[in-house]
Amino acid sequence: MSAHTESRFEAEVYGSRLERAAQLVRAAHLDALLITPGPDLEYLIGSRAQSFERLTCLVVPASGETPSVVVPKLEAAGLADSAADALGVQLVDWVDGVNPYQTVKATLNAGARVAVADNMPALHLLPIADVLNALPVSATPVLRELRMRKDASEIEALRRAGAAIDRVHARVGEWLQAGRTEEEVADDIAAAIVEEGHTKPEFVIVGSGPNGAIPHHEHSDRVIESGDIVVVDIGGPVAPGYNSDSTRTYAVGAPDPEIAERIAILEQAQAAAVASVRPGVTAESVDAAARNVLVRAGFGDAFIHRTGHGIGLSVHEEPYIVAGNDIVLEPGMAFSIEPGIYFPGEWGARIEDIVIVTEDGCESVNKRPHGLTAL
Amino acid sequence: MSAHTESRFEAEVYGSRLERAAQLVRAAHLDALLITPGPDLEYLIGSRAQSFERLTCLVVPASGETPSVVVPKLEAAGLADSAADALGVQLVDWVDGVNPYQTVKATLNAGARVAVADNMPALHLLPIADVLNALPVSATPVLRELRMRKDASEIEALRRAGAAIDRVHARVGEWLQAGRTEEEVADDIAAAIVEEGHTKPEFVIVGSGPNGAIPHHEHSDRVIESGDIVVVDIGGPVAPGYNSDSTRTYAVGAPDPEIAERIAILEQAQAAAVASVRPGVTAESVDAAARNVLVRAGFGDAFIHRTGHGIGLSVHEEPYIVAGNDIVLEPGMAFSIEPGIYFPGEWGARIEDIVIVTEDGCESVNKRPHGLTAL
Repeated sequence: MSAHTESRFEAEVYGSRLERAAQLVRAAHLDALLITPGPDLEYLIGSRAQSFERLTCLVVPASGETPSVVVPKLEAAGLADSAADALGVQLVDWVDGVNPYQTVKATLNAGARVAVADNMPALHLLPIADVLNALPVSATPVLRELRMRKDASEIEALRRAGAAIDRVHARVGEWLQAGRTEEEVADDIAAAIVEEGHTKPEFVIVGSGPNGAIPHHEHSDRVIESGDIVVVDIGGPVAPGYNSDSTRTYAVGAPDPEIAERIAILEQAQAAAVASVRPGVTAESVDAAARNVLVRAGFGDAFIHRTGHGIGLSVHEEPYIVAGNDIVLEPGMAFSIEPGIYFPGEWGARIEDIVIVTEDGCESVNKRPHGLTAL
Repeated sequence: MSAHTESRFEAEVYGSRLERAAQLVRAAHLDALLITPGPDLEYLIGSRAQSFERLTCLVVPASGETPSVVVPKLEAAGLADSAADALGVQLVDWVDGVNPYQTVKATLNAGARVAVADNMPALHLLPIADVLNALPVSATPVLRELRMRKDASEIEALRRAGAAIDRVHARVGEWLQAGRTEEEVADDIAAAIVEEGHTKPEFVIVGSGPNGAIPHHEHSDRVIESGDIVVVDIGGPVAPGYNSDSTRTYAVGAPDPEIAERIAILEQAQAAAVASVRPGVTAESVDAAARNVLVRAGFGDAFIHRTGHGIGLSVHEEPYIVAGNDIVLEPGMAFSIEPGIYFPGEWGARIEDIVIVTEDGCESVNKRPHGLTAL
């Protein structure tokens, strides 16, 4: 089996991530990272362990000493697929009735300053703050330094994800037809997302007619009509967990010429943002590049969200392409560029590619035609 | 359509929950509850809104003033199905680029002491602590007073959930056969969970032979053999969101008599715990009732987890049936009773019902035979 069909990368990949994470924690004058299940745990040790109310927590000491995982005894088997064993990560298991927060504290030096995963729930964060007698800080400023810059294996996974979702978009005409409900179309798309190589469908937005004007609409029992403009925003993970996310806007039957014209301007906005990406420019400048085109055309008020979000093991992660974010883009950063225009009660449109910053510009992993596609 | 096929209860149900929540917050000398999407939000306003990195947060003032929801403008439509509108809950929307934590702060009085939902991620909790300049406390001690005691509509929903999962267990023999993989069996069970009235399968554990000795094993490509003992632990939500959760242990072909004898003792332990439930006893005494039977029979070390967990909108919630939990049981509390015995590398067994505390004992919502079922 080639590496990418596995549930994780080789153990060395995680060993080097853990080492760099420890260095960054040290540089941030912190003593340890505390990471509960979720994308950060997946990033650091290749574990997709899930978590309920019992604490599972990876402790990464800034000292560079071997990390440990505090884990409920009856969930310890869930770490078997991860790189923990191969890396010599110490399992510290606990049974019902024990206070696992004291167990975490015991892995740390007195007075340790810790950073916690962004997705750590209050359920665990508050007792940790209590036993440490200090409020942790967010681990994201540390981890995003790693997670934002994709390495070659990650870029390859994002390309495969992009190609897989492109194959689904290429088939949308098979299902998106007048007389069918958004739900029926979404079910067919969800099945195709898996058929074309994703582990599962993560989200399927089919927003027809007025529903297209609601950016986060999923799908409904609305029957698609001839003349509808339909936003199709779809994606999911491919092994070992990297996500696709691509939006195209379709016309069922011949589109109204004025609508087609507006969507042509949206296409220009999306292309302008893509053209603006290169190392050294800020995230917010890419947002501005898309926004300026729409503002100049008089559609500034119709573009009601940011231009994009980073993507990788999470569908939404750093860097966010939004006004106020002055992160400077570097090679290997991957994010969506997805301006949209929305006319409440009437219709909406969005065009989205995932791009990866290269040495002198960017590469889009999505290659489908960007304009309004008449079916 | 009858009430229970809807996605939520009538608005009045949520109105009264919000009112009681505000009273309890006041009694706890707190100023407000801050509730992000998840079961607490569903409990309080009937919203199954989901959340990514953008903050959605219900603010319930202790004063009894009308609550508000801080919500990203482009996700505001996700609240349409909730009771928010009918209850006059104020929507305070925000757009990308705004600091939503300041927006939350603006809904509070200066120096407000707040309690947050257990599932609020660090991503939101840390910035809230920062703008308020104080560490929030957990809302669970307040909310569990409400959520632990199920009202008549909730009990009715749990009964429907129990009956639905019983119908699935009644059909397990159709799929659980030697020569099939755990995965194939699990797929069939997952489909039946939906056919029998659940919204979706939430979890499907098919642990055959040695896999049955791993309590949180899900399913694998292991081929089931004649003579296997198989743990089947399954459940999911029924409208409007209340969960089933029931385990039975099956023998594929004639079971080894010594194994059958041990499972008969497990059956006694489960029955002893059920018999011990009544208002006035503690949660931990129910755990002890099951454990004592197994300890006396010499299987204390084989029972490696707590006896149960509360259930409702969450699969796992208060009250936990575990040593150290001295919560006194009251009518309307609902929880699992699920002792198990596990022999690593060999086999395991677990028997689980959901029970609801009544005036003088308890009612089990699961009625399937409890002993080892030979197929």
